[in-house]
Amino acid sequence: GQASLAQDVALPEDIAATTQGLIDAGLQDDVGLKFVEDLTTEIGARLAGSPDEARARVWSINELKELGFDAVRVEDFTIPYWARTRESARVTGPNAQDLVITALGGSRATPQGGLEAELVRFESLAELQAADPATIKGKIAFIDEHMYKTQNGAGYGLAVRKRSGCAKAAAEKGGVACLIRSVGTQPRRMPHTGGMSREGALGDLPAAALSGPDADQLTRLLARGPVSVNLDIGVEYADAAPSGNVIAEIEGTDLKDEIVLIGCHLDSWDLGTGALDDGAGCGIVVGAAKLIADLPTKPRRTIRVVLYGSEEVGLFGGAAYARQHAEELEQHVLAAESDFGSGRIWRFQTNFGDSALPYAAIMKEVLMPLGVSPGDNAAGGGPDIGVLRRAGVPVVTPGQDGRDYFDYHHTPDDTFDKIDAEEFRQNVAVYAAFTYIAADTGWNFRNEPMSPVGTE
Amino acid sequence: GQASLAQDVALPEDIAATTQGLIDAGLQDDVGLKFVEDLTTEIGARLAGSPDEARARVWSINELKELGFDAVRVEDFTIPYWARTRESARVTGPNAQDLVITALGGSRATPQGGLEAELVRFESLAELQAADPATIKGKIAFIDEHMYKTQNGAGYGLAVRKRSGCAKAAAEKGGVACLIRSVGTQPRRMPHTGGMSREGALGDLPAAALSGPDADQLTRLLARGPVSVNLDIGVEYADAAPSGNVIAEIEGTDLKDEIVLIGCHLDSWDLGTGALDDGAGCGIVVGAAKLIADLPTKPRRTIRVVLYGSEEVGLFGGAAYARQHAEELEQHVLAAESDFGSGRIWRFQTNFGDSALPYAAIMKEVLMPLGVSPGDNAAGGGPDIGVLRRAGVPVVTPGQDGRDYFDYHHTPDDTFDKIDAEEFRQNVAVYAAFTYIAADTGWNFRNEPMSPVGTE
Ligand SMILES: [Zn+2]
Ligand SMILES: [Zn+2]
Ligand SMILES: [Zn+2]
Ligand SMILES: [Zn+2]
Repeated sequence: GQASLAQDVALPEDIAATTQGLIDAGLQDDVGLKFVEDLTTEIGARLAGSPDEARARVWSINELKELGFDAVRVEDFTIPYWARTRESARVTGPNAQDLVITALGGSRATPQGGLEAELVRFESLAELQAADPATIKGKIAFIDEHMYKTQNGAGYGLAVRKRSGCAKAAAEKGGVACLIRSVGTQPRRMPHTGGMSREGALGDLPAAALSGPDADQLTRLLARGPVSVNLDIGVEYADAAPSGNVIAEIEGTDLKDEIVLIGCHLDSWDLGTGALDDGAGCGIVVGAAKLIADLPTKPRRTIRVVLYGSEEVGLFGGAAYARQHAEELEQHVLAAESDFGSGRIWRFQTNFGDSALPYAAIMKEVLMPLGVSPGDNAAGGGPDIGVLRRAGVPVVTPGQDGRDYFDYHHTPDDTFDKIDAEEFRQNVAVYAAFTYIAADTGWNFRNEPMSPVGTE
Repeated sequence: GQASLAQDVALPEDIAATTQGLIDAGLQDDVGLKFVEDLTTEIGARLAGSPDEARARVWSINELKELGFDAVRVEDFTIPYWARTRESARVTGPNAQDLVITALGGSRATPQGGLEAELVRFESLAELQAADPATIKGKIAFIDEHMYKTQNGAGYGLAVRKRSGCAKAAAEKGGVACLIRSVGTQPRRMPHTGGMSREGALGDLPAAALSGPDADQLTRLLARGPVSVNLDIGVEYADAAPSGNVIAEIEGTDLKDEIVLIGCHLDSWDLGTGALDDGAGCGIVVGAAKLIADLPTKPRRTIRVVLYGSEEVGLFGGAAYARQHAEELEQHVLAAESDFGSGRIWRFQTNFGDSALPYAAIMKEVLMPLGVSPGDNAAGGGPDIGVLRRAGVPVVTPGQDGRDYFDYHHTPDDTFDKIDAEEFRQNVAVYAAFTYIAADTGWNFRNEPMSPVGTE
């Protein structure tokens, strides 16, 4: 089917030429790079639900209006809010020494001055889950599981389980707190925060991440005998704090009710300035959209840029969008989200209906000169558009080289200087190309019962 | 002179054979590596004058006795004591955001809650020193000078001037605090502490180092308009706190009153565990000495291992040693200090009398198979033995490859995992070799008026 149909469809010549122009312009992008530089410099960290995230919305609205986008607006929602107010940890006893930790999002507070308890070490969350409660009762569970470094970030899914699950598993067995080896891939003394699973603002226990060297230090100390730790965490939280999605559009022409959505998330963790996660993604989609907005002729479909709020703490922006646009999801013809830094895109995956695979093939062919390998049809999309994919919206995943991403992710080190301008611009070029093709061809990326495919 | 004399002296065959055995054993060292692993694990940070440094002295005494050294002891002295109790900084105003800083050793405290003032940026200490006082009065001086990354650490001497001099220069012009770009060579959000110049425990102003990315952030913000910062530093200090040098010996035989001194410093800054600076140096000299102590026959001269106290805060251990051993300095035939991490030794410098240059040549020839280039005769020795060199004691500098040293130096990241075991062991082999040669040959490394050299 695919091969025969691929002969039947081709990119119209004018669209091909315009796409090539967008690619060339994307490789020279300044708008997108300036967007992330300004956002991370002028706002800095943008914790979900915080006044900083609110400032970032106001800032983004101003920027996007100034860039000339249509229908620039905030769509509000509320979230359970959590923030750290203090955090420290210290080995007590004869080997007394400070540890470098950072609280996990949703950590409960300890008493002022900390709670002190003995550590019990586990190689993995599974080992903690299988452990005899008697070994954990009254103690601090320490999960020392390492993370693999991979190009596509596949190690994250495995490693993040301990972050999500430690407090719940330890609490069930009578543990008093959780320490995990950071979900990260660098050997520096810089721990990685991130959300733990929770209902509402708070999880089950005080919980924090140790840097890799600190986890190793505890393992060496445990080899010498029992180790107790004083863990001191302060938090503030609220059931409902303001957040919102920032939206800007390029209104389409004859197909303006059909939407090509490209997104990112505007919130970040509080430690860094949210440059790679996810200021870069916002710069990439804004930069790509601006190139299209500047074309002499608008594309046929509407391009909607969504800067999701409160991704980090539970994908609240994505859920709010799906709820607030429930009536309109059928008209979403394609969605993509950039949320994996700004490393060079090495692969382009789709998640299209079978009948639309020839369109995927054309997109891949267009992107190949940018060094992009053709990927499979199993794209996951990004975190905030997962809900759209599950509702049947076709998605693409422009796969970035993320080998270094988890060196910086959710640490103070996620700052603008980590963005490589040349790699960033290749991302802008890729996004501009497929977005424009999707918007101007009018192609249907869903299954098309009436399509010429499907006779064999 | 040198060439002709080199034919006249040679390493006696038995000493050459023993030296080769020590080199082979050094390359298999476990004692030295275990010393630094245990010290940095069981004690951790060892701030000068603190209870942690005191614990490290007790710990070292026990270890050195257990290793079988002679005359293991502490030689006490007191120092002005300084420690941080809190530190934070935050940009205020419309771009409000946290900065990552660390107080410099000797920083004054700010009021509780911080002092807030506008920043004035300087490219260098010299620019601050030349500035019109009116531009600084009531403000925070920010010196953004970068540091060069070099193999032999030459960039440090240039870069450290801003750390020493910022507070004094700013105070003289009515400034209220100092922020410097870290004296360091890595792009992570991890600032480097270190001493500022001061009389007694305190310097002239509150002073702190910014990480590189934070310095860049301030520079970007200053390009957009005036920037004010709230700087909050708490300190404790005392005029006299206990410190001491830990000493262990291998008593010599017929020349036991003559001393070959190999040293390191036991104290560290408070942020890391003092692995590269200078646990490694202590492991190297202890490991080397232990190999010599285990020989079937003791060398003729006494080998004295000195773990200096309170180096970081003003070379107090070195000064105390010179004072307490003033009568004995003439009998110090050679001194070396390892205080630049544990990178591979690539060069061997001496600082010998002219008549002793043939001995330098022999040492260099012995070390060349370890990948060590012959260096010049302008060795500086290490920080704590500078006072010995100035008093006429011959010194050597086994020059380590320190390209990465200032990535970790004086940061939380100075931890055991940064030590490469193979490179560390090459250091042990080098130290064992030259120390043994110096101790067992009886050679005179000073100028020797009666020497056969000096006729031309
Ligand atoms: Zn993200
Ligand atoms: Zn994230
Ligand atoms: Zn040092
Ligand atoms: Zn130092």
